[in-house]
Amino acid sequence: MSTPRSFEHLSDDEHDAPLATYLSDELSGSPSEDAQNLISFKRRPKTSKYSIFGGPSLAPPESSYSSSFNQSATSLHTLDAPSHLLSGYSRTSDVSSEGWTMEGPGRRIYDDLTAIDWIFEYTKERLRLRALDGKGGVIGSIAKAWDSSQIWLVLIGTGIAAGVLAASINIVSNWLGDLKDGFCSHTFYLSRNFCCWGLDAGEKCPQWIPWSQAIGAGSKGGSYISEYFFYMLFSVTFATCASLLVKYFAPYAKHSGIPEIKTVLGGFVIRRFMGAWTLLIKSLGLCLAESSGMWLGKEGPLVHVACCCANLMMKPFAAIRRNEARKREIFSAAASAGISVAFGSPIGGVLFSLEQLSYYFPDKTMWQSFVCAMVAAVTLQYLDPFRTGKLVMYQVKYTKGWHDFEMVPFVILGILGGLYGTFFIKMNMKIAAWRRDSFIKKYPVLEVVIVAIITGLINFPTVFMRPQSSELVANLFQECTPNGDDFFGLCAPSQTPHRIILLFLSSLLGILLAAATFGMLLPAGIILPSMAIGSLYGRAIGMIVQVWQRRHPGAWIFSSCLPDVECVTPGTFAIIGAASALGGVTRMTVSIVVITFELTGALTYVLPIMIAVLISKWVGDAFSPRGIYESWIRFKDYPFLDNRDDPVPDMHVADIMTRIEDLVVISQTGHTVESLVDILETQSYKGFPVVEDTRDARLVGYISRSELRVALDQALHVRHIPDTTECTLTTPTSSQQLDLRPWMDQTPITLPMNSSLNLAATLFQKLGLRYILFARHGILQGLLTKKDVYFVLNSEEVEPREGREEGRGLLAPGGGMRGLGDEDDQSSIGSGGEERGLLG
Amino acid sequence: MSTPRSFEHLSDDEHDAPLATYLSDELSGSPSEDAQNLISFKRRPKTSKYSIFGGPSLAPPESSYSSSFNQSATSLHTLDAPSHLLSGYSRTSDVSSEGWTMEGPGRRIYDDLTAIDWIFEYTKERLRLRALDGKGGVIGSIAKAWDSSQIWLVLIGTGIAAGVLAASINIVSNWLGDLKDGFCSHTFYLSRNFCCWGLDAGEKCPQWIPWSQAIGAGSKGGSYISEYFFYMLFSVTFATCASLLVKYFAPYAKHSGIPEIKTVLGGFVIRRFMGAWTLLIKSLGLCLAESSGMWLGKEGPLVHVACCCANLMMKPFAAIRRNEARKREIFSAAASAGISVAFGSPIGGVLFSLEQLSYYFPDKTMWQSFVCAMVAAVTLQYLDPFRTGKLVMYQVKYTKGWHDFEMVPFVILGILGGLYGTFFIKMNMKIAAWRRDSFIKKYPVLEVVIVAIITGLINFPTVFMRPQSSELVANLFQECTPNGDDFFGLCAPSQTPHRIILLFLSSLLGILLAAATFGMLLPAGIILPSMAIGSLYGRAIGMIVQVWQRRHPGAWIFSSCLPDVECVTPGTFAIIGAASALGGVTRMTVSIVVITFELTGALTYVLPIMIAVLISKWVGDAFSPRGIYESWIRFKDYPFLDNRDDPVPDMHVADIMTRIEDLVVISQTGHTVESLVDILETQSYKGFPVVEDTRDARLVGYISRSELRVALDQALHVRHIPDTTECTLTTPTSSQQLDLRPWMDQTPITLPMNSSLNLAATLFQKLGLRYILFARHGILQGLLTKKDVYFVLNSEEVEPREGREEGRGLLAPGGGMRGLGDEDDQSSIGSGGEERGLLG
Repeated sequence: MSTPRSFEHLSDDEHDAPLATYLSDELSGSPSEDAQNLISFKRRPKTSKYSIFGGPSLAPPESSYSSSFNQSATSLHTLDAPSHLLSGYSRTSDVSSEGWTMEGPGRRIYDDLTAIDWIFEYTKERLRLRALDGKGGVIGSIAKAWDSSQIWLVLIGTGIAAGVLAASINIVSNWLGDLKDGFCSHTFYLSRNFCCWGLDAGEKCPQWIPWSQAIGAGSKGGSYISEYFFYMLFSVTFATCASLLVKYFAPYAKHSGIPEIKTVLGGFVIRRFMGAWTLLIKSLGLCLAESSGMWLGKEGPLVHVACCCANLMMKPFAAIRRNEARKREIFSAAASAGISVAFGSPIGGVLFSLEQLSYYFPDKTMWQSFVCAMVAAVTLQYLDPFRTGKLVMYQVKYTKGWHDFEMVPFVILGILGGLYGTFFIKMNMKIAAWRRDSFIKKYPVLEVVIVAIITGLINFPTVFMRPQSSELVANLFQECTPNGDDFFGLCAPSQTPHRIILLFLSSLLGILLAAATFGMLLPAGIILPSMAIGSLYGRAIGMIVQVWQRRHPGAWIFSSCLPDVECVTPGTFAIIGAASALGGVTRMTVSIVVITFELTGALTYVLPIMIAVLISKWVGDAFSPRGIYESWIRFKDYPFLDNRDDPVPDMHVADIMTRIEDLVVISQTGHTVESLVDILETQSYKGFPVVEDTRDARLVGYISRSELRVALDQALHVRHIPDTTECTLTTPTSSQQLDLRPWMDQTPITLPMNSSLNLAATLFQKLGLRYILFARHGILQGLLTKKDVYFVLNSEEVEPREGREEGRGLLAPGGGMRGLGDEDDQSSIGSGGEERGLLG
Repeated sequence: MSTPRSFEHLSDDEHDAPLATYLSDELSGSPSEDAQNLISFKRRPKTSKYSIFGGPSLAPPESSYSSSFNQSATSLHTLDAPSHLLSGYSRTSDVSSEGWTMEGPGRRIYDDLTAIDWIFEYTKERLRLRALDGKGGVIGSIAKAWDSSQIWLVLIGTGIAAGVLAASINIVSNWLGDLKDGFCSHTFYLSRNFCCWGLDAGEKCPQWIPWSQAIGAGSKGGSYISEYFFYMLFSVTFATCASLLVKYFAPYAKHSGIPEIKTVLGGFVIRRFMGAWTLLIKSLGLCLAESSGMWLGKEGPLVHVACCCANLMMKPFAAIRRNEARKREIFSAAASAGISVAFGSPIGGVLFSLEQLSYYFPDKTMWQSFVCAMVAAVTLQYLDPFRTGKLVMYQVKYTKGWHDFEMVPFVILGILGGLYGTFFIKMNMKIAAWRRDSFIKKYPVLEVVIVAIITGLINFPTVFMRPQSSELVANLFQECTPNGDDFFGLCAPSQTPHRIILLFLSSLLGILLAAATFGMLLPAGIILPSMAIGSLYGRAIGMIVQVWQRRHPGAWIFSSCLPDVECVTPGTFAIIGAASALGGVTRMTVSIVVITFELTGALTYVLPIMIAVLISKWVGDAFSPRGIYESWIRFKDYPFLDNRDDPVPDMHVADIMTRIEDLVVISQTGHTVESLVDILETQSYKGFPVVEDTRDARLVGYISRSELRVALDQALHVRHIPDTTECTLTTPTSSQQLDLRPWMDQTPITLPMNSSLNLAATLFQKLGLRYILFARHGILQGLLTKKDVYFVLNSEEVEPREGREEGRGLLAPGGGMRGLGDEDDQSSIGSGGEERGLLG
């Protein structure tokens, strides 16, 4: 058994002989031997080297199982368990009187990095509810009420946790951020704002000690250099700490997490991605990363944080925790809470989750998202970390509307947003590819240190880049008022030309730094940097228009301006620039508009914002249809099958499916535990179609590797049955057979051979299937998996890839199952090392 | 052939004999005769009375076809068409080299009141795009650009049309509404507002002549009575005209149209529902109905109007017009334009379409809806029908925020909203049932007249009910300011107790009148009346709280109030009341919140609005899970299969499917045109499974009645082939056979017999299927249609119904196809009479 069987000795004749030859050939062999063998219609194994162990009375062989079967293989008991234990599901053959485990879709065990079965999960939930409905009386009512209130407890808990965490992160990162400049003399843990509480913005604040003053650098030059030094010191330290935390404690805490969340919501299992340890490290790392002043945002990571909270909140509730589909509904809701607290924008959060993240978003989920986002927003407002009393973060109060002539620059902003998005995505992916393929791959923390140093060097001397991005955006959005603050000299007409150039320069540097930063070993989002970049060039363009209007107030295009009032509001250009830049990068539409006006309260400007976002998306899509998150999903090769109506190659499934000749199938009778274990050991495929017998491949069902493994594991090590026990995938003929039917999908979706790829792709997308079997008149013909479809749909655009993924020809004949069989094929996800469990 | 065959003479033996008996029995008969017969495994017809007309050389029989075949049946030519015309799809039997019409899903022809095949439509579109992609060169590029710009032309056109129509309806209904009070002396077609343009709200306007003044009624009493009379006169006249227009010109223009739009978007075909004539009558009727002062809104009908516009706009574009799925995407977008212009709320419109209307709403549709809604809003703002310069219709400027203690009355408002919704729906459905079953059914216009008279009698003397609902709502939302207008005496403290009682009374009367009005033969929506009712009682509660706070300013719960400022703003209570009432009636959540704050600009109050809407939905759902639109869908028996995860009865498809014994199937060979026509004539079923031969029912495909009819019609009357021509549903063996394969669904979705209803229901819901076939090892076992599933899922809640639908037992054995076969089963939709085509 442990000897690997050799396939090389098949003669060419056998390779090319038609199917019928094999079938008649098989007939000549001993049926029992045949049946025990693993059936492959193409690669017929040499005559079995097994000893004959057909009946349960034979002693177990001495071979020990490798991999997961190595625990107690030699200590197997002889068959003494009562027969109902072995064939607990086989008491009757009546179809309709049995429970769903009998004639139903089987059971599911999801390994890491596999796809879930949506239909199965929803069926499970429906049946669970049905069973609950069956309970009568007071206890039944209480059980039902408890059951339906669980999800609300989870959602409200998640909302509160997201609000509290967001508030804490805000406070800590604010304090750390200010620490780069100086410290509070009376209470060191206060940020500048709280240290100088009660003073007006322009007033001198004696409690706040800049570092230059602390070290006594008297001269102006000395003071500048010492401040530069401390700024750099803290900035690089924070970034390095964040990176080290991520590297050593929670690799999944890096990046924004949104591509992964999108993949998870699309039905993929990534274990430990939303664990407690990830939550802790991501929150801490986020404080550090944000306060380092690097070009990254906390919005995307907050979505990940909220999802982690949801994952922890649902731990006590088995009914939710055990259903992968319900879990994903809650993650959708949690994601909206993340955006809700990031921007103080609950409705924007719901739309973000709907538009950007969620694969399956029924009305119910919208409602749940709404509740979760609202609770989070209320919590944040109640905690009020900045003591402003407002949920609206960058509240603007524009006194004027917009004029018709401004539509031209607004359109230009939209175009710029699209171009920025395209350029940014291209550059970011180039950098990511370089990172993957170069020496720096081995030194991710070093990379962070280098980028942090460069960022610090650039940031400090540049007036627009030194403050935190959020502060920058808030200031760029403001209207110039006679007695308002003017931190950046944006409102002084004398400085205007200089400021315009600096704004453009800052936005250009910002693009470069953000493109380098997004993707490093840091918790880092791209939403706020994009908004900052957009508002920088937006404000610059606004100021250009303003200068032009001031110089030519009588020109016909400015005729709608009133004579004594300032006509152009550059702050609105910053808002529109921010929205369109975000649109160009993420390719979202409605959610950006809603977020923008929840963020600013600028309802008057909703139409120009919309138009700019429209144009930005159009321009971006013209260059490349993928937003930044989709690009990363593609880059990381997550098997995310988008639920869109992209054109599908016009081919028949017969052209791409794994034909039966290449499939490893299992016959419904004749196998023993041992022979099935052998199949698991020698075959790396993730699932096996089950056929009636070897003569004709009449389809019976499908059994996944993971379920088969668990079933056999349980039989061997829990029930301690001998490994010579006969297994059956049909009604057992003897009570001593091991009935594996409950582990089999007995109603797999089956299509005729002549179906188009279109039809198959639609089924995969709409139903969230994992595999489709193809049959003709009940005879198995082939198999198609979600990954096959994913690769076919994405293969046209695959760029030539070097290194680790070379030679993965996906349309090669018979290559259909290659993606499945290759256990390493998701190494880009799994390679980050093991995450340590903190809470469980 | 014209003689109806009798099934009654089958012996009981034959009825009860097992399938095998029939099969062997069939073998004994003449194969050619057997094959020509219609094959039913249960009701085996008596030996055929047909003459033998197997070959094309035989003369056509003299029988004439009834129904759709009666045009030129006797003038059939003998077979002289070239063979490729007859068997144009049969040149090769290779599977993969053929086009999709060959080995694909067939063709679809949708009759009125049938369901569309979503997968088919999307496949068609994907293949069309694929074909377009294949075109190279300049012409190809131009074709592609033209193709992709078509949808934007339609959307922009729809948006502009919706904006223009909404503006026109606003102007006309405003003028007509004011006409009830008086007229403009200098220009009779001006509304009061435009007549008195330039004057302040309080000023006397000499140009506007009230009717009492016009007829010279001097005394106060006489003036009141004469004004009452004219108000009643115009009100009843307008309502009657609207009703007559609807009755005689466009029955589909009645009601709000939203239940029907929901059904259409769910994949159902209702012909002429969105025709030009409906558009015209609905627009005109809406002006009249709204100006009549009855308790109805124009919001829902505007959605219908926008959809009609879209339907006309897509007429020139065959690529869109001919694809039912794409049409529905555009209708989704148009619906959002309808709400966008109704409330000046583009984002609210998109969410309304998403949350309330759409069945299938991919990202793409969200984007299209966004564009369409935005164009409509911009158009409306540009036209500016009320010359306010604002898109925000009921703009409010609250100077104060809300206080913690106000949360208690806000929650009460939410509860009241839910109770109102429940009560309203119950009463409205009761009235609708009474209307359907009583004598009034025959006199719908009389009903309108009666309700209009009652409404008029109540409205005129009641200060809150006399103005148009929109004006009422706008005023109730306003904050009381020292020098603001106070039309209704809401701000004078002396009148407060009286006003509070009147507000409650008005809202109660409003509920009764709205419940009677919604569903009559009028274009009438329920959104604005609900908001008006909610804002009436909301304002009342706000005033109670205000009085309470004024009387006890020192109470601890009012401690957050500042001493010299008015603490409570009753206008905010009106807004929250309106939102929660709307939530209770429609059960929407996110869209109501967004609409409310786009409508009012009250961003500060977004959290209380959310909480009230939440609670309102919870309370409403606790009593009944259906909103008003779903209740109407249910009431009208539209086959709308909701795409939700409602629990499904735990049963096997085998229990509810139509078993093969009860199915009428067609064999793939042996039929002639004549025998197929005969099947169509004698069987009313809407489709027929196709099997290989009569001995074993090996499944080949499925052919719908409508496609078979068109195919035969075309063969007989376009190609003029004799009706003795042999038909084949497999590869033709002779060039003279009529190949019907292109009309057949050759890859129908097939499930195993032991599938659960859950799985089948999921496929129907997620894929929008029309039927599922069940097979075991390739042998047809049964059929399940969308309607079967619809009835099973809804059967538990079916109230006992009298009259026309009695005895429709849906779970009766073999009743699965009853819904299909019963051609009258959709009489509630089709009974409105034929609509006349105006433009096409």
